Amino acid sequence: MDELDIDVVADVELDDPVLIEGLPGVGHVGSLVAEHLLEEFEAESTLVRRIYSTAFPPQVAVEDGVASLTCTEVYAVTGTGGEDLLVFTGDHQAQHGDGHYALAEAFLDVAESFDVSQCYALGGVPTGELIESYDVIGAVTDESMIDDLEDAGVEFREDEPAGGIVGVSGLLLGLGVRRGVDAACLMGETSGYLVDPKSARAVLSVLETRLGFDVEYDSLDERAEEMEAVMGKIREMESQASMDVPSDDDLRYIG
Amino acid sequence: MDELDIDVVADVELDDPVLIEGLPGVGHVGSLVAEHLLEEFEAESTLVRRIYSTAFPPQVAVEDGVASLTCTEVYAVTGTGGEDLLVFTGDHQAQHGDGHYALAEAFLDVAESFDVSQCYALGGVPTGELIESYDVIGAVTDESMIDDLEDAGVEFREDEPAGGIVGVSGLLLGLGVRRGVDAACLMGETSGYLVDPKSARAVLSVLETRLGFDVEYDSLDERAEEMEAVMGKIREMESQASMDVPSDDDLRYIG
Amino acid sequence: MDELDIDVVADVELDDPVLIEGLPGVGHVGSLVAEHLLEEFEAESTLVRRIYSTAFPPQVAVEDGVASLTCTEVYAVTGTGGEDLLVFTGDHQAQHGDGHYALAEAFLDVAESFDVSQCYALGGVPTGELIESYDVIGAVTDESMIDDLEDAGVEFREDEPAGGIVGVSGLLLGLGVRRGVDAACLMGETSGYLVDPKSARAVLSVLETRLGFDVEYDSLDERAEEMEAVMGKIREMESQASMDVPSDDDLRYIG
Amino acid sequence: MDELDIDVVADVELDDPVLIEGLPGVGHVGSLVAEHLLEEFEAESTLVRRIYSTAFPPQVAVEDGVASLTCTEVYAVTGTGGEDLLVFTGDHQAQHGDGHYALAEAFLDVAESFDVSQCYALGGVPTGELIESYDVIGAVTDESMIDDLEDAGVEFREDEPAGGIVGVSGLLLGLGVRRGVDAACLMGETSGYLVDPKSARAVLSVLETRLGFDVEYDSLDERAEEMEAVMGKIREMESQASMDVPSDDDLRYIG
Repeated sequence: MDELDIDVVADVELDDPVLIEGLPGVGHVGSLVAEHLLEEFEAESTLVRRIYSTAFPPQVAVEDGVASLTCTEVYAVTGTGGEDLLVFTGDHQAQHGDGHYALAEAFLDVAESFDVSQCYALGGVPTGELIESYDVIGAVTDESMIDDLEDAGVEFREDEPAGGIVGVSGLLLGLGVRRGVDAACLMGETSGYLVDPKSARAVLSVLETRLGFDVEYDSLDERAEEMEAVMGKIREMESQASMDVPSDDDLRYIG
Repeated sequence: MDELDIDVVADVELDDPVLIEGLPGVGHVGSLVAEHLLEEFEAESTLVRRIYSTAFPPQVAVEDGVASLTCTEVYAVTGTGGEDLLVFTGDHQAQHGDGHYALAEAFLDVAESFDVSQCYALGGVPTGELIESYDVIGAVTDESMIDDLEDAGVEFREDEPAGGIVGVSGLLLGLGVRRGVDAACLMGETSGYLVDPKSARAVLSVLETRLGFDVEYDSLDERAEEMEAVMGKIREMESQASMDVPSDDDLRYIG
Repeated sequence: MDELDIDVVADVELDDPVLIEGLPGVGHVGSLVAEHLLEEFEAESTLVRRIYSTAFPPQVAVEDGVASLTCTEVYAVTGTGGEDLLVFTGDHQAQHGDGHYALAEAFLDVAESFDVSQCYALGGVPTGELIESYDVIGAVTDESMIDDLEDAGVEFREDEPAGGIVGVSGLLLGLGVRRGVDAACLMGETSGYLVDPKSARAVLSVLETRLGFDVEYDSLDERAEEMEAVMGKIREMESQASMDVPSDDDLRYIG
Repeated sequence: MDELDIDVVADVELDDPVLIEGLPGVGHVGSLVAEHLLEEFEAESTLVRRIYSTAFPPQVAVEDGVASLTCTEVYAVTGTGGEDLLVFTGDHQAQHGDGHYALAEAFLDVAESFDVSQCYALGGVPTGELIESYDVIGAVTDESMIDDLEDAGVEFREDEPAGGIVGVSGLLLGLGVRRGVDAACLMGETSGYLVDPKSARAVLSVLETRLGFDVEYDSLDERAEEMEAVMGKIREMESQASMDVPSDDDLRYIG
């Protein structure tokens, strides 16, 4: 295997497809959106590429006893009612900096071979606290893209995300602009502590508006309810903990 | 030295040999099996290859004052009464992700040069607790291999091993399938805390059934008894510790 | 993208320019100086190169919603009243050792293409304590450079900086001398705990003397006053803490 | 600069020289020996090579204000009264595994260009306790070398050093044997806690016997006395600490 291998699994004709990247990250927001799209458009999706890299963890996943090598899978989705899609999803990010660059370039190579017209890199932006209203923060390669995204409900803020965007999502923009590709990063606000289906729903809703398709949210809402139950328990534990105020004596021993 | 060097030490004609990989890992299960096979079939074994890699730790082992560079040794075993074997063993795994990939490819290169028909990657799967009955969990490159292995006592479970298989064992499957090689990973259940000869025995017993040879277990049983003595002491310490229940006062200071 | 890419943004004729390197580091002294020069000479500065490297963090910065890939920016400054300058600045150092070497070589390549006659690598040297008088410590590629720098107020000490100079600043000297480039590192003394505009001012003042230009210090002094306020609070907290002397009983539990 | 650069500083004719490698390591034993040899044979030594590597820390040393890039220096020593020497010394080991391999190969390349007949890699072996009698443990590439070294006072033990030999010293043996070079590692026993001139003296004394030269030990003995004073203080603090037995109450809070 080379440092980077792109296996052609199938070829599908797509009409000006839109790249959707949803790799694991903060709140698993990007992954949740990509997986939900592939579930909802299962009949319309074809696995077209597998991208292998020695920068991925040296690892296989095992499902029902059958092993498969860590990779990014690329699905062609056509007949969505809106734009054709090219969805990038997988269980892992690259494990080191140089690998992130190599992987993002590979994503853009695949995108070019499908004549992708624009890219959406999806992720979460951690707020550090449990949140009520799920805003979607945006970043783009060119400021001419901002107006349309604001119309779809995306917020652009002067200094956010404060630390920039790390990993393949950020590089799709950073390297995309050098190739003349229009790319946007959509980041759902999330506490950052838990898998966050509600944040994923907010991002999906922007994509629906922008790309002209409709999806059901039932399975995502179910996952959101499960997480809600988990968060409920966490809040309960927190409130008990705060009633159980430590005495001065205790505090002396806290390192 | 190149990033990866394969030294030809000897050449031996083998008849459809079976690759056995037993590098260090959880409970040293894989190493114990490989070493035990080479002990039992000492007269039938010939060192045929040494695989050096700059991904190994920069280190020599010293035995009776003589230094030897870290490597994977490959032994050809013929006249076992069953299948011919090609056994891969050594003291170290690669030290970084890219190195794991390079090493697994080198193993498969050597396998191809010996016309290996199938691969067994051996390892342990940690249960996190001292265990009574030593099951062997399996993973394969193709589901057609499952039935025969189940007949030999291997268990295939929907979601195990949960985190997939990491290191060269996993990659032999992940990269093997891309080359059209049938490969299985046999993972002996083990607490994961100690070198585990009993788990190794369970894996060996599967190999005996599958590959048609017979080995004695005396030396492995002796090591098992030594480890049993160690575990006995640990249990003793644990039960003393549990009788020595800390008061509420103590618990307040445990971080 | 290659491991290292130098984008030509513009070309400007410079007369025997002097390289000024100010990447982030101890007390952000180098960055502060470089940024201040570019602010003061905004009308005289042209962005001429962007240096990208896979050794930088895989990251984009986002400003007003627009993403830009991590890089080192190179500005040509002409019409300063003194020497022409070639200023290297950016938000990040390389993330690993080999990357530092590659980046420093790229800086020297750009320098050669502009016929740079001498280099100033800027940084801070940590003293570990809040300081009153801001000395500037020097290091050079050739001892013939020492006298002129001492005349400009730079101090050369037998054993300082004790640990040598790490990162791209050090390598500009270490690799520069191998190419026959005269290079000096100017290190402002700084506590090392905080961004230090006063230390930056001391370094700037040496550059003024050496390179024959004049800059205003207003914005740097403002930042210094802000930091002074922060330091004032730290001192206050320290003095409160020291009055709050722990008893022997407390000390027993400090790990 | 390439990943590895060997600068030719001078060329000196040597007669069947013996390679002496003394890079930093346990107790700085190897460095102390190499530095002492170069001090004692200052008049007989010529700097012949500088070996630069991007695997070294990205760093310059500064002496009297003049910076020099991290490297390994190679000195030719002729007219010792015994064998001619080729001494490798420097302030740093490589910073990662692949770099150790590259550096050891570079050392062997230089050795071959000088027709080195045998190699001595020097180091310390940590005992973990303050020691009285300073034995020198040996490891060799070929067991035929053991007798002569035992005659010179080197000890060869069945299982020592237990963890093998890590770093460039180990690799000189491991890679040397693959090139047909006779190499020995001489490891002075040392506590491992402090720079250990006494351990260095023990190793030097073996070299004197084997290589037929004589050196004074005055400067090494002085450093030994300084370290002795330091160790005296440590012992004093230890004995005070052991008299100051903590009560049961204290022990409860120790994590």
